Amino acid sequence: MTAPDLPLSAAAQPLGAEAIRLQLRTWPEIEAYLQRCKGVIVPLGSTEQHGPTGAIGTDALTAEAVALEVGRRTGVLVTPTQAFGMAEHHLGFAGTMSLQPTTLLAVLHDLVLSLARHGFERIFVINGHGGNIATARAAFAQAQGSAASRGLAVAPRLRCQLVNWFTASPVLQEARRLYGEREGHHATPSEIALTLHLEPSLQAHQRPLPEAAPAGPIHGPEDFRQRHPDGRMGSDPFLAQADHGATFLELAATALAKDLRTFLAQPPGSLPGSPPGD
Amino acid sequence: MTAPDLPLSAAAQPLGAEAIRLQLRTWPEIEAYLQRCKGVIVPLGSTEQHGPTGAIGTDALTAEAVALEVGRRTGVLVTPTQAFGMAEHHLGFAGTMSLQPTTLLAVLHDLVLSLARHGFERIFVINGHGGNIATARAAFAQAQGSAASRGLAVAPRLRCQLVNWFTASPVLQEARRLYGEREGHHATPSEIALTLHLEPSLQAHQRPLPEAAPAGPIHGPEDFRQRHPDGRMGSDPFLAQADHGATFLELAATALAKDLRTFLAQPPGSLPGSPPGD
Amino acid sequence: MTAPDLPLSAAAQPLGAEAIRLQLRTWPEIEAYLQRCKGVIVPLGSTEQHGPTGAIGTDALTAEAVALEVGRRTGVLVTPTQAFGMAEHHLGFAGTMSLQPTTLLAVLHDLVLSLARHGFERIFVINGHGGNIATARAAFAQAQGSAASRGLAVAPRLRCQLVNWFTASPVLQEARRLYGEREGHHATPSEIALTLHLEPSLQAHQRPLPEAAPAGPIHGPEDFRQRHPDGRMGSDPFLAQADHGATFLELAATALAKDLRTFLAQPPGSLPGSPPGD
Amino acid sequence: MTAPDLPLSAAAQPLGAEAIRLQLRTWPEIEAYLQRCKGVIVPLGSTEQHGPTGAIGTDALTAEAVALEVGRRTGVLVTPTQAFGMAEHHLGFAGTMSLQPTTLLAVLHDLVLSLARHGFERIFVINGHGGNIATARAAFAQAQGSAASRGLAVAPRLRCQLVNWFTASPVLQEARRLYGEREGHHATPSEIALTLHLEPSLQAHQRPLPEAAPAGPIHGPEDFRQRHPDGRMGSDPFLAQADHGATFLELAATALAKDLRTFLAQPPGSLPGSPPGD
Amino acid sequence: MTAPDLPLSAAAQPLGAEAIRLQLRTWPEIEAYLQRCKGVIVPLGSTEQHGPTGAIGTDALTAEAVALEVGRRTGVLVTPTQAFGMAEHHLGFAGTMSLQPTTLLAVLHDLVLSLARHGFERIFVINGHGGNIATARAAFAQAQGSAASRGLAVAPRLRCQLVNWFTASPVLQEARRLYGEREGHHATPSEIALTLHLEPSLQAHQRPLPEAAPAGPIHGPEDFRQRHPDGRMGSDPFLAQADHGATFLELAATALAKDLRTFLAQPPGSLPGSPPGD
Amino acid sequence: MTAPDLPLSAAAQPLGAEAIRLQLRTWPEIEAYLQRCKGVIVPLGSTEQHGPTGAIGTDALTAEAVALEVGRRTGVLVTPTQAFGMAEHHLGFAGTMSLQPTTLLAVLHDLVLSLARHGFERIFVINGHGGNIATARAAFAQAQGSAASRGLAVAPRLRCQLVNWFTASPVLQEARRLYGEREGHHATPSEIALTLHLEPSLQAHQRPLPEAAPAGPIHGPEDFRQRHPDGRMGSDPFLAQADHGATFLELAATALAKDLRTFLAQPPGSLPGSPPGD
Repeated sequence: MTAPDLPLSAAAQPLGAEAIRLQLRTWPEIEAYLQRCKGVIVPLGSTEQHGPTGAIGTDALTAEAVALEVGRRTGVLVTPTQAFGMAEHHLGFAGTMSLQPTTLLAVLHDLVLSLARHGFERIFVINGHGGNIATARAAFAQAQGSAASRGLAVAPRLRCQLVNWFTASPVLQEARRLYGEREGHHATPSEIALTLHLEPSLQAHQRPLPEAAPAGPIHGPEDFRQRHPDGRMGSDPFLAQADHGATFLELAATALAKDLRTFLAQPPGSLPGSPPGD
Repeated sequence: MTAPDLPLSAAAQPLGAEAIRLQLRTWPEIEAYLQRCKGVIVPLGSTEQHGPTGAIGTDALTAEAVALEVGRRTGVLVTPTQAFGMAEHHLGFAGTMSLQPTTLLAVLHDLVLSLARHGFERIFVINGHGGNIATARAAFAQAQGSAASRGLAVAPRLRCQLVNWFTASPVLQEARRLYGEREGHHATPSEIALTLHLEPSLQAHQRPLPEAAPAGPIHGPEDFRQRHPDGRMGSDPFLAQADHGATFLELAATALAKDLRTFLAQPPGSLPGSPPGD
Repeated sequence: MTAPDLPLSAAAQPLGAEAIRLQLRTWPEIEAYLQRCKGVIVPLGSTEQHGPTGAIGTDALTAEAVALEVGRRTGVLVTPTQAFGMAEHHLGFAGTMSLQPTTLLAVLHDLVLSLARHGFERIFVINGHGGNIATARAAFAQAQGSAASRGLAVAPRLRCQLVNWFTASPVLQEARRLYGEREGHHATPSEIALTLHLEPSLQAHQRPLPEAAPAGPIHGPEDFRQRHPDGRMGSDPFLAQADHGATFLELAATALAKDLRTFLAQPPGSLPGSPPGD
Repeated sequence: MTAPDLPLSAAAQPLGAEAIRLQLRTWPEIEAYLQRCKGVIVPLGSTEQHGPTGAIGTDALTAEAVALEVGRRTGVLVTPTQAFGMAEHHLGFAGTMSLQPTTLLAVLHDLVLSLARHGFERIFVINGHGGNIATARAAFAQAQGSAASRGLAVAPRLRCQLVNWFTASPVLQEARRLYGEREGHHATPSEIALTLHLEPSLQAHQRPLPEAAPAGPIHGPEDFRQRHPDGRMGSDPFLAQADHGATFLELAATALAKDLRTFLAQPPGSLPGSPPGD
Repeated sequence: MTAPDLPLSAAAQPLGAEAIRLQLRTWPEIEAYLQRCKGVIVPLGSTEQHGPTGAIGTDALTAEAVALEVGRRTGVLVTPTQAFGMAEHHLGFAGTMSLQPTTLLAVLHDLVLSLARHGFERIFVINGHGGNIATARAAFAQAQGSAASRGLAVAPRLRCQLVNWFTASPVLQEARRLYGEREGHHATPSEIALTLHLEPSLQAHQRPLPEAAPAGPIHGPEDFRQRHPDGRMGSDPFLAQADHGATFLELAATALAKDLRTFLAQPPGSLPGSPPGD
Repeated sequence: MTAPDLPLSAAAQPLGAEAIRLQLRTWPEIEAYLQRCKGVIVPLGSTEQHGPTGAIGTDALTAEAVALEVGRRTGVLVTPTQAFGMAEHHLGFAGTMSLQPTTLLAVLHDLVLSLARHGFERIFVINGHGGNIATARAAFAQAQGSAASRGLAVAPRLRCQLVNWFTASPVLQEARRLYGEREGHHATPSEIALTLHLEPSLQAHQRPLPEAAPAGPIHGPEDFRQRHPDGRMGSDPFLAQADHGATFLELAATALAKDLRTFLAQPPGSLPGSPPGD
């Protein structure tokens, strides 16, 4: 009658998605899990325009799907998705819902602190939106400071890492192979393909589009809309196909699961990856 | 090949859940929707312990399910769920992820401002967690002020309303009929029943539990854990059954859809509901 | 020549108002008081329009008067009144002075932390303004978190409670008996009556008024002024009489003194009152 | 039956205290007042230890009394007193209730903005506590910025001035004449004398005290209590007499009423008083 | 081959400027320095208009020069200069770069906390801009609170002091002797003279100017520019000469070095200087 | 007698460093400059440990030197250096002075807003510290939002760009050529070489060091010090020579001057550089 022992661990067998969703577990199960594994995955998305045919939820849907697949393969817990991110520059398009950088910083700070309080030591954020990267890293630094100044036991061992599924090398290579220059930089066929795989109803939106304005640096919302009147940056999302999306999910999950295992196994002082000149 | 016209409106026919999920629509569709309807539903949950057998995601799962059902019936758009809420007092239990009140206030402030910028005038927050209520209301007042001081066109017409699915009268009555005093105040059989209906895998957690500590006022996390050692407040979640959950969903959606229609139709100065003595 | 021993305690005899005003005591007296009683009353008001004939200070004057009377009867210390509250929606009327929700949150947070640092464990806020309720509750949660993260000794025992004098059951009943529907929701005859009792000079403002716009939900200041052009919400303050005010003070003080005694006596886990579904 | 026209103006005759208390007026009266005078007085106090025999409310009680007397003489409106100020360094003594500098800054910012929104152009803060000065001035600068960035009509004419009743020249001279070096720097006989005049019950606290530790710079609360174990800084409050207090009130009100008239009459570019080197 | 032992100490011989610049030392040298001296100098400037002929960097250039000279004479470390201060009221003139009061407060808070964490106990801020004073003092109070609530070992001994080079008595006297009333209050000949001494290229800007608008209280930027159209407040900077600047540097450094030695030697409870009435 | 006309423009001849330092110009000169050029350079450094032999000011000294050289070559104004950055992870080493991410965000936000208010449209931040990158980018997004919500005229054209001198391609190539793997990731020979070129006195610190701990991801200060006990990350700063530094300055200035010219010439929608997947 009691729930089966939760077989989560960093070295575990592949599991069903239910087993690794924090939302579907109980607190005693999390307490038990922490005896075996100190890692956790936090999916981070955004809710913003993705061109005239792409779903507004693209970044959250894809981050969540990749996170669950990485969790399933590694047995590492996946928290709920933070579906709202920093999308100020997309606010010129209806439906975009954005947190200011200071707000997103506070959200990630609080989530990291909550997890650290319970004893989690490795927070692995799987991100679906380029605009979140800077703020998330600032939040990690702020959270490290708070963990220390609040005297959390885990503070000296606490580590946070952000990875983008869409910049994993195999993903970038496959996108280049399939779409070449028409991959573009926003509302890309690769991310649209993944949403087609996840939500077949989205297929109905697909239609040929005129050539998109080329990508450029991102500034304020008015500037963005003026330069990219339909929201795309150099991309041709009509090239996207649902089966491409299945491939991207496979490639991203494989690459990120490897990154996560490395992150969890990380002994002090052994890893490359620091930006030079820090 | 193009997407069918989105038939959303406050007076629309019942729709499939895809049609009213903001995440699955495109920005031109939202622009068109705003010509017909200025309302939007925002589901607000929490990620926190729900006793020894209840799912940590209970409040977000239930708020989202009710919101989608209300949206389906009314044709009003449903945004993604903010799955993390104010659960500071539950941080004594592993797995709880809480935003501080000031952080949740900033999140809701930014989301309301984003929506108001696009022209939404009626923000209907469907909430799954008592601990969010106060902060959400404070956030609405803060957002009203910002909308005015930023000179948003919609400011004089902007209205926000928070409703809890679990305090809708028919829901309270049914819970009392089914569970009497054993409904309790946290990890209640009514909310657990709804999760059993939504996620059948949760049935495996159900088991008889000793009598819970009676409910009391909620203060800090240490106090909470000391007085409620297994996280429940006077509740007996073992009474919950999946078919009860289906009933609760039906009752909540019916009641809240009515509330929403009233909210959307609201002419100035016509409604009761203000707290006395303000 | 030295001051008489301060006879304050939760079980004390009725006292003169001077004896229980924190402002009129010395720090060694407070140190001694804390040996006997860990409770304290904080009056919270607002400075906002109260219709064409009501005093702008109504909410602070009434909260302070009730607090002092409760203090006199219970022997529990009363701090100075925080006369400015959250009144953003009244800013359309001259004379209203409002703190933004985030500011009021910070004020109450800091006051609770100051008191907790000295060893106060039960903070009883007597409130005169509906618009403060949500923010005050959010502040309590924030303060609980800070008390814990700063390692205050009192943190696990710290409890805050907000009570409105104007929603105490006997007050509501008497108002209904005297004024029926014309009690309304803002600038109510009950609160005006109490100010007439406290400040006889206010009698000169009383005059018959046209029927007020009915009460409705409260949103931004422009909306408020448009729907309630003279600031009243469904009320007829001309019905107020000073002797009614004396009765309201008696009823409120009796009810809240009882609430306070219960709050001070509260052992862990013994009280009802939590919102369901938290 | 209607209230008499409020005879407030900067050049008005002396009035009773009720007439110039914002708390006791109605919003239409304030609207009318603004046709004649753009000035307003805000009393600012603190709630903090004042030595073994001084009242904790000294700074708020005295600021309010001086403000009301200045208001009575000039006909300028007096708002409620902000009774809590920045008293972090006194938190080592029971009963002190302090706002952090950032909190007090937010409070004064919001109050100035509220008043400016209604059309007040000259905000005259009468202060009772040295620890508030720096933060109040920072708040004024912050509020000026907000008034401009929010586009308030009054922004270019908005001016804020803080005056301390206890540093008015005639007050300082009289204190020196009466008490010489034993005036000291905290819990001074001059401020205690004013409280004896205002609240005769405080006389019962007066008793001879040993010589106080000499004054010094003020840092953190622990340092303060270590160097000033009974809370006094070089003062002998036993010298205070109620009739001295009456004199101090007279001297302060005369001096500050003159300052206020100058402030209200101030044409652009005509006044000395800027700190050199700005 | 190794660096010479750093001969810094509060009683040290005069040194070259390199030796006391924190920027040019290594962390082990600072660790060693802290064995001998707990004091440090922080130069604080502003970047703001200084009239039609004065350098925008005047306040930072002068504060840094005085700080380095004081450091050279006392052997006390000098940190980098915070070149941006609170100059909101100068934003009406091109080139002014201002931090809001809350931002400058956060900057100084963080810098004090960083230094306190390493064991510095006496933070001596040498300031070049009147507009920074209030905010800096508020920041010190905020930092004291944080040092205590974070449990820093140094918290009870931490002291911060702000001194303005331009209000040192000998500086004020010399300015009065040289320029009389034409010293004025902003873009003064004394500060301009110091910049001419430090940066000979600035001589080329000097030219006769019409009489400046007299000094007055400082409010918002629009008001400032309206009343002081060329940015000066009652000053005649054409009187400034480079050799005056050399004298001002000498006078300021002598006076402030003495203040610093007193500050470092300060035993508890021995110093005058607290504002009366605190 | 008047200052020579300031010959600044984006196409100008090389100038002396004085001419392009904002600190040494007057406000009318800046007003004139804005007629010809809307660009400005902001140097951003950090004050933090750089290993046992590197100067604590390395990141600010190098960013400032590169910025002045870029300014000299392009005729674009250079503001004062913000010498304090985000260095939380270096706080375990004496002398490090760090701003929290939220503080640095506020600083850069305010500086960008100040410049935008005057009409600057292209803010080019030359950065010397990897730890600043994320926070600076978050600040740019926050500032864009504020510029728009405050209605600044320049808002739609405002653009901010951050460039690191140490990651310019020619710099990375030369560092690899000279030092290979021993360049490392913190306290690198390339940055130390530049400081030796700028401040010859630093040569005295140079000495052979044991092999450094290899680089790894950067987390909290305790973790950092534990894994990198002398502060270096895989670097051998003893390889640095002053003449290398001259080369690095030349390479960085050439590369960044080109980047700046491109940035200033940037028409809407013409540039690559956006991160994919945004």
